Order: sequence, then C-alpha cells, then structure tokens
Amino acid sequence: MTEHTVRSFAVELDLLADDIARMGGLAESALAASIECVTRRDSESAQEIIARDAKIDALQREVERRVVLLLALRQPFAQDLRQVVGALKVSLDLERIGDLAKNIAKRTLVLNTDEPAPLTGALESMGRLTVSLVHDVLDASAQLDPASAMRVWMRDDEVDQHYDSLTRALLAQMADKPDALTSCTHLLFVAKNLERVGDHATNIAEVVHFIATGEDIMAARPKTEAIPIPERNE
Amino acid sequence: MTEHTVRSFAVELDLLADDIARMGGLAESALAASIECVTRRDSESAQEIIARDAKIDALQREVERRVVLLLALRQPFAQDLRQVVGALKVSLDLERIGDLAKNIAKRTLVLNTDEPAPLTGALESMGRLTVSLVHDVLDASAQLDPASAMRVWMRDDEVDQHYDSLTRALLAQMADKPDALTSCTHLLFVAKNLERVGDHATNIAEVVHFIATGEDIMAARPKTEAIPIPERNE
Repeated sequence: MTEHTVRSFAVELDLLADDIARMGGLAESALAASIECVTRRDSESAQEIIARDAKIDALQREVERRVVLLLALRQPFAQDLRQVVGALKVSLDLERIGDLAKNIAKRTLVLNTDEPAPLTGALESMGRLTVSLVHDVLDASAQLDPASAMRVWMRDDEVDQHYDSLTRALLAQMADKPDALTSCTHLLFVAKNLERVGDHATNIAEVVHFIATGEDIMAARPKTEAIPIPERNE
Repeated sequence: MTEHTVRSFAVELDLLADDIARMGGLAESALAASIECVTRRDSESAQEIIARDAKIDALQREVERRVVLLLALRQPFAQDLRQVVGALKVSLDLERIGDLAKNIAKRTLVLNTDEPAPLTGALESMGRLTVSLVHDVLDASAQLDPASAMRVWMRDDEVDQHYDSLTRALLAQMADKPDALTSCTHLLFVAKNLERVGDHATNIAEVVHFIATGEDIMAARPKTEAIPIPERNE
C-alpha cells in the first residue's frame, strides 16, 4: 500500500466518522426536542421533529453505502475493520433513536391538550438522563474512548430505575383518573421509548468499546430487560 | 483466486446462511411459544423461552465473528459482499425478535393469573400473523427471493391494522374494568412488541431484496410508524 492510499483511507475513515457524528447530533437534538414538545404539548415543534427524521434516515443509508464501498475497495483489517463494521452498527442504533424521538413527537400530536400533563417532572428528568447518555456515548465514539463508553454502559440501570418508577406512577394515575387514561397510555409508551433509547446508547457503548479494544463487553452485560410494573418476580 | 478458495468461500457463505437459518428458526419458535404462553398464562414455558434466548444471542455473536472474518480474509464484492453485510443486519433483527419474544414471556410471569385474559382471540390472531411474516421472510432469505421478500414487506400494514384495533380494544377494557388495568397494560406492550416484530420482518425483507437485486426498497417505504390509539391525525 502506498503512502498515498494509506493517507486517503484515513481520510475516508474520517468522513465515515463525520457522518456518524452528524447523525448523532441530529438524533440527540431530535430526542431533546421531542421530550420538550411532549411535556409542553407543542404540536408545532412536534411536526418539525417528524419532518427532520428523514435526514437521519438518509444519513444512515449514506453510512451504509460508505461502509460497503470501504469494505469492497479497501479490505480493512484489525481496528480499521472493526471501525468500519462498527460504524454500520452505530448508524443503525442512531437511526432507531431518531425513530423513537419521532414517535414521541407523534404522540404529542395525539395527546389531549385539554388534560393537564401528568408527571411532567418525572418525564423531563428521565428525558434529561437519556439525552445525556446519548451525548456522552457520542463523545466516547468520537474519541474512541473505551473507558467513557464503559461509564455510559454502566448507567443503563439508572434509566431502568427511572422507567420503573415512572410507569408505576402512570399506572397509579390511570387507576385514579379514568379521564387521563389515553394520555397516560401515550406517556407509558413515551417512557418505554426513552428506556429503548437507553438500550441503544448501551449498544453504541458496546460497539465503541469493541472498536477501541477488540474486546466484547456484550457477554458481561446483564441481559435482564426492564419490564413496566416491575414489582413481582422478574 | 484458485478453484479451491472459490469453492471454500462458497462453503463459508453457506455456513453463514446456516447460522442465519438456525437463528431464524429459534426466533420464530420463541415468538410462537411466547404468544401461546401469554394467552394461556403458562409461566413454565415462559421460563423456558426466557432461558433459550441466550442461544439466539450467542448465534448473533457467532454470525458477527464470521462476517468480520469473511470480510477480512475474503474481501468479497458485489452480491457476495451484500450477502455478508446483509447477514450481519439480518442477525441483528433476529436477535431483536428473540428479545421481543423473551419480553412477552416475561410479561406472562407478571400477569395476574386470577384475572380472565382479555382479548385472547385478537392477540392470538395478531400473533399468528407476525409468526407467519417471520416464517415467510426467513424462506425469502433462504431462497434469496426478492419477490417473496417484497410480499412480506407489503404485509406490514396488516400488522399495523391488527395493532390499532387491538390497542383500541384494550383501552376500552381499561376504561370499563379498572381491575384489569395492569393486565391490559402488559397486553398493550405485548401488542407493541408484536408490531415491532412486524417491523423487523420488514427490515429483513428489505435486506433480502437488496442482497438479491442490489436495489434499495427502503427509500420507497412509507415511513409512517404505527401509534396506539391511532384515531386523530398521524
């Protein structure tokens, strides 16, 4: 391999990393905006979030094209290969985070605006947590830093705890106020979407750790999945 | 490339296809079993489904190892490359279908067995539909048949229709019978899991179509996502 092709392969890896960073930025801001608009019942910004998701999907397809081209033309190996394959996996997780934010925005449109928004505070704090996990795992990805990837990975339990208490509180509301049944059901799914965002941040952390170290932390991961209404045997 | 390496590359592609077929068979049977056990409140088979999911996860990691090895050592191109990268994507969808089946099984364990199971028939018919989609898309994958992949892809709307009417019916129950609130909430999430299974079958159909034809049907796909309580503007 000549000096030139080596250099230009590095450039292509950077372009791939740029696409991932751009996707990540869009997914993170869509998520933050979706939480704000569902708690404020802001239909206008909900429409914007829904419209902007197409951009994330387009970037995911671009990442996939780049990855297939790099694999075909460059035959990367070792960490380069892990980075190219990892970029494909991360792009799929970011695309799902974008979908989940879009789904939260869609629920804003069908929420009954006459009802008071229940549990806004708990929803906002769970939202802030998931946004920070996405933000931190994107930093870890940009730096290829396995230690900060691991820190994000360890924090998924916090998300599950928020999720458990929020679903419990929503179910209590549903029992007390039958009028709020529809709103609370939508918010149950919003909470579930945020719990899924935490899982995708965890997936990305695992990929970043594998790219950086070549070692799989997936096997070490507790595979239990959060269930709403978690009291009783899990 | 010698005749020998060509032949053994074909063999390696077959081994990859075998892993995908094995994963697919396990995911399909876990899904079918999870629907049966949630409708019959069968905690014993729920425990088995939960235990068996580790096998699907292990196969997914094996597929990933095979894919990375094939890419590194064989530098496939054209359809071979699409098939290797596609196998990785399909394995991720099948792993998620296994997780969703496991999650349905876990809900069986926390359902209140004293309550009558509401809407068992509607749940079973939605379950049968999603199992048949998974079954058919695995056939399409084994045959690399873009036409049957497209047929599966077109049928995702059926799943969304079942999902919409089932969630509507569950919400009606929740309003009528506050005692059934917890059970109905679990069944709402079971319905959501089945709707997600339909999305993963659709993803696999898209991958199969791309492997077989090199053409992307993703762009043509209507990107609207099903929302529970779907009346009102989506």
